[in-house]
Amino acid sequence: MGTFHKTLSLLLAGGLCLGAAAQERPLPEGTTVSETALFQREYPRVDAQRRAYFRLYAPQATEVKVDCRAVYAMEKDPDGWWYGRTEPLSVGFHFYNFLVDGATVTDPDSDTYCGSYGRSSAVEIPEGPEGDYYRPQNVPHGQVRSVVYHSSFSGEYRRCMVYTPAGYENSLTRRYPVLYLQHGMCEDETGWARQGKVNHIMDNLIAEGKCKPMIVVMDSGDCGIPFRPKKGEDPGKAREAFGASFPKILIQDIIPFIDREFRTIPDRENRAMAGLSWGGHQTLETTLPNLDKFAWIGTFSGALFLRGNELPTIHDGVFANPAAFNRRVHAFFIGVGSEEGDGLKRLSESFTAYGIRNQYYVSPGTAHEWLTWRRCLKEFVPSLF
Amino acid sequence: MGTFHKTLSLLLAGGLCLGAAAQERPLPEGTTVSETALFQREYPRVDAQRRAYFRLYAPQATEVKVDCRAVYAMEKDPDGWWYGRTEPLSVGFHFYNFLVDGATVTDPDSDTYCGSYGRSSAVEIPEGPEGDYYRPQNVPHGQVRSVVYHSSFSGEYRRCMVYTPAGYENSLTRRYPVLYLQHGMCEDETGWARQGKVNHIMDNLIAEGKCKPMIVVMDSGDCGIPFRPKKGEDPGKAREAFGASFPKILIQDIIPFIDREFRTIPDRENRAMAGLSWGGHQTLETTLPNLDKFAWIGTFSGALFLRGNELPTIHDGVFANPAAFNRRVHAFFIGVGSEEGDGLKRLSESFTAYGIRNQYYVSPGTAHEWLTWRRCLKEFVPSLF
Repeated sequence: MGTFHKTLSLLLAGGLCLGAAAQERPLPEGTTVSETALFQREYPRVDAQRRAYFRLYAPQATEVKVDCRAVYAMEKDPDGWWYGRTEPLSVGFHFYNFLVDGATVTDPDSDTYCGSYGRSSAVEIPEGPEGDYYRPQNVPHGQVRSVVYHSSFSGEYRRCMVYTPAGYENSLTRRYPVLYLQHGMCEDETGWARQGKVNHIMDNLIAEGKCKPMIVVMDSGDCGIPFRPKKGEDPGKAREAFGASFPKILIQDIIPFIDREFRTIPDRENRAMAGLSWGGHQTLETTLPNLDKFAWIGTFSGALFLRGNELPTIHDGVFANPAAFNRRVHAFFIGVGSEEGDGLKRLSESFTAYGIRNQYYVSPGTAHEWLTWRRCLKEFVPSLF
Repeated sequence: MGTFHKTLSLLLAGGLCLGAAAQERPLPEGTTVSETALFQREYPRVDAQRRAYFRLYAPQATEVKVDCRAVYAMEKDPDGWWYGRTEPLSVGFHFYNFLVDGATVTDPDSDTYCGSYGRSSAVEIPEGPEGDYYRPQNVPHGQVRSVVYHSSFSGEYRRCMVYTPAGYENSLTRRYPVLYLQHGMCEDETGWARQGKVNHIMDNLIAEGKCKPMIVVMDSGDCGIPFRPKKGEDPGKAREAFGASFPKILIQDIIPFIDREFRTIPDRENRAMAGLSWGGHQTLETTLPNLDKFAWIGTFSGALFLRGNELPTIHDGVFANPAAFNRRVHAFFIGVGSEEGDGLKRLSESFTAYGIRNQYYVSPGTAHEWLTWRRCLKEFVPSLF
């Protein structure tokens, strides 16, 4: 079929070329393919010591490194394939990228995820049964929906991801509370549904009766790029402006749209917001000025630029009267990984000392990474509604 | 906040490093950012002559090329950034990858899509108003749902993407016909919803009354890797085995699941299947032995390994009685790009000469690429149901 068959032959040739050399070095003993590997790929791999194994075909490269929580040199075989291995990693999901002669790039064998500098490769170091809560189980499954809406604020069509719990469609009368759940810097609306495994976490908690059935809305926080003040720009002002469009779009466009399109309970008592890292910052920027719209607040490794001694005055004095704040906000969650330092612990203690009721959670053995945030979600949602 | 702030600082540093040098070469005049660029990225770019512009930071690389329908050398600036430009491309969606000292990698500035060798970067050369049918319009919007199901055939949890038309939820009584729509080699269940823009195409056609509201189900065809026979394996047998699990999973698991989970009309008269490239091959492999389950068939640049002179005997003689076939199959669509050669034209003519009614469509000016398949979908679905 002429050109058409040429196209297939090119794919075939590509297959041969990619595949043939792949046989040169045997698969390292005691390793298995990471769940993040693309269909029928043999790498990235992991072993029982929680080490990750990588390879890349780069015949003319003079230096290839892999950046996976730390930077590791890779070793070149005569056939042009480079191989690398990490030290033992913490369990869970880790972004990585290759550095090919100074170029930061993804791994052709790995699926790609929003995060890190843009799109990144990733490896999942398996947990034991304690990780079953974010794995698909034989329970009723909800759906994650990609939904298009028009933003009057930005004047463009946007899309958000909406988790609906199992059974949502089997009754036209039941209405549900809503959690607005945000990602971090360099990420987008796909983060929670992909590396966050939000649907499995919610399905399993709901099936066990550990949390109420709820709708979870995930949008792009307009912070999908590394933060960088422009030349001569004041860093403080730049920080205030970074992702600042999102709270306006959420209040003005997203919430009204979700309350129209889905069977929500459209009041503050049934509306929560949480976010990780920069999304935690955006959660406070969104909820604190709008406590008429939100009664539940969560931050996961939140980029919280608060100081304990400023509590009486910041955010237009929303914390000034702790008793009043505690009456209005039914959950104020501050989660963090044990390897992230004690800044958020001290902030939680400042809130407590000042009389602001808050729930402080530490994810053991994890840093600023997605397993911390899966665990934070698991700890936060049972307290909702 | 110790490590936590270090993490933010690293992101910040990353931003400065990525961003600073980016100012060195001014943006080429008369160009705009491709819609495939990540949030606030400046590349890839396109101009009015339908040329694509790329850049990559690879300070120590000795050779960087970009492969976008053809391979183009890129030029290095003293600051470590490489720049490249294509010749005029056809309108529509084109995959591309960089070749960094022989390593095939994606572009950090572009979103990534299933296709090509695995995950690929892409650039969209804008059409005029003739492309409005795959752009979001002010019409009622359906949803694309990510749905988890268990496959008894493969013994694993899988997920499929399901388009439900606008208004699907507003009545619990209305039932809908179903189109099963497959991707091609090296792709997966995300292809049609991402680069295929299936939801916009369906929303717009339905809003104009050009096609019936229907459910569209997109799954992984288990062919997401370049086809390659194993050493010593018979290429014909290898080809038969490539993606051969999918027809079984579709019949045994997916169709029953969809008919349970969604409000379908679960009979052959209201069930269609179509696929592109290898998905076209899988469509014939699935539908022809199961005409009790499908009455509508579409192939878009299908990898159809049929010869006109074999029509009386192949596929257990399903074509042997043209009149009977024409009575059972209400649409038999063969679409292709004008730049793909005349193989499928000759096949269509063989079918016609033999008495098999079929609809042959040629996408003008396009090759084995996604604009061909968006157009095929637009031509195919109005004939359904």
